[in-house]
Amino acid sequence: MSVAGGRPDAVTDTNDLAGLQRRLADFAVARDWGRFHTPKNLATALGVETAELAEIFQWLTPEESARVMDDEATAFRVRDEVADVLAYLLQFCAALGVDPLDALSDKIDRNEKRFPVT
Amino acid sequence: MSVAGGRPDAVTDTNDLAGLQRRLADFAVARDWGRFHTPKNLATALGVETAELAEIFQWLTPEESARVMDDEATAFRVRDEVADVLAYLLQFCAALGVDPLDALSDKIDRNEKRFPVT
Amino acid sequence: MSVAGGRPDAVTDTNDLAGLQRRLADFAVARDWGRFHTPKNLATALGVETAELAEIFQWLTPEESARVMDDEATAFRVRDEVADVLAYLLQFCAALGVDPLDALSDKIDRNEKRFPVT
Amino acid sequence: MSVAGGRPDAVTDTNDLAGLQRRLADFAVARDWGRFHTPKNLATALGVETAELAEIFQWLTPEESARVMDDEATAFRVRDEVADVLAYLLQFCAALGVDPLDALSDKIDRNEKRFPVT
Repeated sequence: MSVAGGRPDAVTDTNDLAGLQRRLADFAVARDWGRFHTPKNLATALGVETAELAEIFQWLTPEESARVMDDEATAFRVRDEVADVLAYLLQFCAALGVDPLDALSDKIDRNEKRFPVT
Repeated sequence: MSVAGGRPDAVTDTNDLAGLQRRLADFAVARDWGRFHTPKNLATALGVETAELAEIFQWLTPEESARVMDDEATAFRVRDEVADVLAYLLQFCAALGVDPLDALSDKIDRNEKRFPVT
Repeated sequence: MSVAGGRPDAVTDTNDLAGLQRRLADFAVARDWGRFHTPKNLATALGVETAELAEIFQWLTPEESARVMDDEATAFRVRDEVADVLAYLLQFCAALGVDPLDALSDKIDRNEKRFPVT
Repeated sequence: MSVAGGRPDAVTDTNDLAGLQRRLADFAVARDWGRFHTPKNLATALGVETAELAEIFQWLTPEESARVMDDEATAFRVRDEVADVLAYLLQFCAALGVDPLDALSDKIDRNEKRFPVT
């Protein structure tokens, strides 16, 4: 994936959360989509994408839902919707200056106190 | 948070995506919650959490929505819901063996072809 | 519920769809909530309420989900969320001049052609 | 609306809530879809349809959202999604024996006490 003479750092580090967040920001800027990306709109879009993920499972039994990746077309669709959910979550976080990893780490800390193991 | 003589690696690396995914898995196993975590249920829970995020914004103007982090209580709530969304997304991905970073990277690649910059 | 000397027609006809739609409109006007009720906001609020309904079921098996009305507190919660969903659906329809009964009747007509019984 | 020599009862009563609920039930029975229609699945489907409605508005300004019915194709889409939301709400209510009109009437009564006009 590395391109000689290109931007090796950018190329090699894009596949972490911060790198993907940068790619999404560049993508939106290049298409002048920033004006649509209010926190309110991004939160709505996030909900729309999670519904598209839930739609895959809506008529399945619990057992069938565990086997969705066996079918190649459905597996593609699952990955595609996961990508959309993560994309809007990262763009939402960027718009409001929220670090999603810190937020989750803090939440797990709180939940460990709230739901102690007995 | 670091514990002398403990598991320094585990402690120091928990705050990345894979580390958080491990903490969430340990948390669910310790409370015997795994039986609830079918892909179908996790997809539904993900949708419920995104709706709780959208609820914060539902009556706000676009301008007001950009200022939600100015209020400390609302900022806490935003971070808390972001954490819940990311938590269920990671647990969903773990249940089905989906790598969310790869999924998003592939999706951005596809979108760059689908929406060329003119 | 009938009030002697009151507005018998209004009192007796409120419990149909058009009557409830009027009560919702009066309620919002009296509280000056109309300015929040853009179609966009009402559609978001509708989604939030359906998520609150889905939340009741998110960890239940299909069998458990069929028995939710056996528990009085859960039954109350189900009815309460159904009311919220219907309330926002009716307010959304009023905002855009959509007749929900006509819309559904037309859709069933279309679906009967789209999914013929074999 | 009545048709001489036809099925006058069926024809005249189908376009109210109870009539539509019966048509939806007949439709599902004729296609053997009843086994999919657990309350849990219907609640999820309801959420998916409200998200499809929200999707129409996700990138619109509040002002643009008030004008969606000016475009014929968008107006059709709005009515189509309203129909889907109402269809799943009615089927959900039928599955659990909930009367949506009573539920909403009771809720408005409660809200009038909870949010008194000052």
